[in-house]
Amino acid sequence: MKTLIVYAHPEQKSLNSSLKDLAVTTLESAGHDVLVSDLYAMNWKAVLDAADFGAAASSPLQIPGDSGRAFDAGILTPDVRAEQEKLMWADTIIFQFPLWWYAMPAILKGWVDRVFTYHFAYGVGAHNDTQYGERFGEGTLAGRRALLSVTAGGPEAHYAERGINGPIDDLLFPIHHGILYYPGIEVLPPFVLYGTDRMSAENYPDVVKAWTDRLLTLDSTEPIAFRKQNFGDYEIPSLHLKEGLEAAGRTGFGLHVRA
Amino acid sequence: MKTLIVYAHPEQKSLNSSLKDLAVTTLESAGHDVLVSDLYAMNWKAVLDAADFGAAASSPLQIPGDSGRAFDAGILTPDVRAEQEKLMWADTIIFQFPLWWYAMPAILKGWVDRVFTYHFAYGVGAHNDTQYGERFGEGTLAGRRALLSVTAGGPEAHYAERGINGPIDDLLFPIHHGILYYPGIEVLPPFVLYGTDRMSAENYPDVVKAWTDRLLTLDSTEPIAFRKQNFGDYEIPSLHLKEGLEAAGRTGFGLHVRA
Repeated sequence: MKTLIVYAHPEQKSLNSSLKDLAVTTLESAGHDVLVSDLYAMNWKAVLDAADFGAAASSPLQIPGDSGRAFDAGILTPDVRAEQEKLMWADTIIFQFPLWWYAMPAILKGWVDRVFTYHFAYGVGAHNDTQYGERFGEGTLAGRRALLSVTAGGPEAHYAERGINGPIDDLLFPIHHGILYYPGIEVLPPFVLYGTDRMSAENYPDVVKAWTDRLLTLDSTEPIAFRKQNFGDYEIPSLHLKEGLEAAGRTGFGLHVRA
Repeated sequence: MKTLIVYAHPEQKSLNSSLKDLAVTTLESAGHDVLVSDLYAMNWKAVLDAADFGAAASSPLQIPGDSGRAFDAGILTPDVRAEQEKLMWADTIIFQFPLWWYAMPAILKGWVDRVFTYHFAYGVGAHNDTQYGERFGEGTLAGRRALLSVTAGGPEAHYAERGINGPIDDLLFPIHHGILYYPGIEVLPPFVLYGTDRMSAENYPDVVKAWTDRLLTLDSTEPIAFRKQNFGDYEIPSLHLKEGLEAAGRTGFGLHVRA
């Protein structure tokens, strides 16, 4: 495998850093190639603005159009182009980050905002009677697989089906489906560590074993069965799921996973 | 009302900017006080790191503990303290931003990551047999109300109950419930403009009317009926919703709204 690890935590002696290091050594020992984008170490610019688009920035700024023209002309900033090239190189992408307020840290959201430009991650493919662009299962990043490795301070029960935070699968859906599956990436079930606020060194050997097991079976792990957009499950252009396709009781985000 | 508008868009001639300006003039004309945090204009630091906690930063960094000690000692950075003071001053908070990749722009997520410190927005209140901290309906920011005013490039149908993006209420739940309701803020139904990628000047008068109507009726708008954590609906400490409380057919995030 050619694996890109996108890592976002400010402390190099953190659990997240240890999980990132373990991924590097485990995958390299198994013969895989690994690149790491350590966003804090890179001093990653989190904030999308006109400077990202160079001479393609119009006034007033038009984010889709300007980013698409900058992408087409090859004049996106070097930091963004480098990340796009790593994504094209990789067949597997691991995101290692803590859940902060039920979402990505800002520096990682800013990686998405800036790297996932028009004509690269969206605004790809034609719109006609049988397709609404190439997205949700098709797109520039098709053929790749991704996995979120996240830490959550609270206990697992709070993220269960009836837990107060909401189910973890639903909390991660906007990332899994809206960010990763949108440009064509298949998404593996996440690796989630709960209760990390109260985790002690005694727990760490079990964590190492669980994470190593996941890393060494990435190749054979089945992705989440999200429905492709343009292959008959959705009305076009409303993109409503056609009636009767869902399993009994499935609602909300769950509709978009095949029964 | 004392209204804080937290605004995040890089272009001062954008729809988002117009909506922010309209909110200022509409509310001030109606006799309300308004403060604006224009995150791009402020060059808001989006990335949480050890520098946020000054002398309270430990090595290795412990984000909850360090941010809580910095808050208690009054040594958080001036930018963060100013935002916390604005939140304490306000009784109403409006967030004006575009949905980028189904979530906040990074600069706004970084406002949450940095301003919502331990002992301010979380880590408040005791844990015992009848409460699990003061959160989800209680907390430092109780007594305040918030509203998300968001723009979405795609058409409304894609955000409907069966739409491919998932229902808008579910996409916004991690912000509504996980970020705003968590420290005690009541959340009003959002003001969402869809299809803004294809919106023309002809559409703008209708937008002005709709947004003005919402602004002038904020006082009398009922908040989303999220369930309070510590008042009998949840088991403690699992924080599972007790069986039988939900309306028929409600699952996932919807469980946490009263029938």
